[in-house]
Amino acid sequence: MRVVILGSGSGTNAEAILSAASAGQLGPTQVVAVYSDVQNAGILEKADHYEVKNSHLSSPSQQAIFNGESENLWIETIKEDVPDLIVLAGFMRILKEPFLKAFSGKIINLHPSLLPSFPGLEAIRQAFSRGVKITGCTIHWVNEVVDGGEIIAQAPVRVMPGDTYELLEQKIHGAEHVVLPSVIRDLAIGVTPFLGE
Amino acid sequence: MRVVILGSGSGTNAEAILSAASAGQLGPTQVVAVYSDVQNAGILEKADHYEVKNSHLSSPSQQAIFNGESENLWIETIKEDVPDLIVLAGFMRILKEPFLKAFSGKIINLHPSLLPSFPGLEAIRQAFSRGVKITGCTIHWVNEVVDGGEIIAQAPVRVMPGDTYELLEQKIHGAEHVVLPSVIRDLAIGVTPFLGE
Repeated sequence: MRVVILGSGSGTNAEAILSAASAGQLGPTQVVAVYSDVQNAGILEKADHYEVKNSHLSSPSQQAIFNGESENLWIETIKEDVPDLIVLAGFMRILKEPFLKAFSGKIINLHPSLLPSFPGLEAIRQAFSRGVKITGCTIHWVNEVVDGGEIIAQAPVRVMPGDTYELLEQKIHGAEHVVLPSVIRDLAIGVTPFLGE
Repeated sequence: MRVVILGSGSGTNAEAILSAASAGQLGPTQVVAVYSDVQNAGILEKADHYEVKNSHLSSPSQQAIFNGESENLWIETIKEDVPDLIVLAGFMRILKEPFLKAFSGKIINLHPSLLPSFPGLEAIRQAFSRGVKITGCTIHWVNEVVDGGEIIAQAPVRVMPGDTYELLEQKIHGAEHVVLPSVIRDLAIGVTPFLGE
């Protein structure tokens, strides 16, 4: 299973995948490329460390991002990797229809809440502010509805009295680092993912 | 802590409370009355079994329910019980402002989902249809926003591959029967509820 990872940040989830893959824990999974829409993002360094091809998904202009021109370039780039699975791991850009069509049924996203609670941005902050006692993370197939695709796996995280926002963030990221590689392994070996943690 | 329970159905959650209270497991909790807006509801039989005062909250007419006249009668009835806590356990009617004001800060509700996911009716059905992998139940303070009050406790329930709707319903009810008495015990003894199960 040829996997491409897209991210915008420090790449801790990408690292969890790369580390598990390099340790042979993800079955027939090969991470073939890591891309970031953010120049010099930490995720690219993580890919370097694991000697995986990586690059910045650049745009000719800001305008090109808005009119989808950049995304069309990205499609061409990623098509060359012949991916079976595209993993959005902290990728902060909403992918448009041409991208979704080009890789239909092959894109999964990680969202830091138990969807359908707290879709969109700042999910952990939203959950913390609402005072929920259980939140978590969700891996889902990506379709045209933001955070609305079919759910593959979820993991619960308990908010304990006295938990700060920062601690909750760490707990959720901790759950993510277990669930995301686990789901990729299950998809690679062709079993139904059912344990979120 | 004088507790009044309101319900509309078979009363399995009321029974979980009554059973735990009669076994001395709920600290200084006394269930002083059980009421139902539905005549001959199973919940009233359950109260009978535990020798707790119970009755049907009747209405002079359907009109009286809609214009709040009936609810004003219920307020008077329940005030005589001098409740410290009113527990909505499968109570299928939305309480209006006069009721909420009369017992301000004293009403808790049990909802069969991890709020804010799936508020409103048929929460278990909604969760099952959406294909979530984790759902559960929520105990929250009741305010004027339906299913919108401050969350007291939540318990997670995992949806496993092959779970039928009926099984999921049973699993969630099972969680409810643990969490609801546990929250009442914690409120009675004055500690912060934090374990959902």
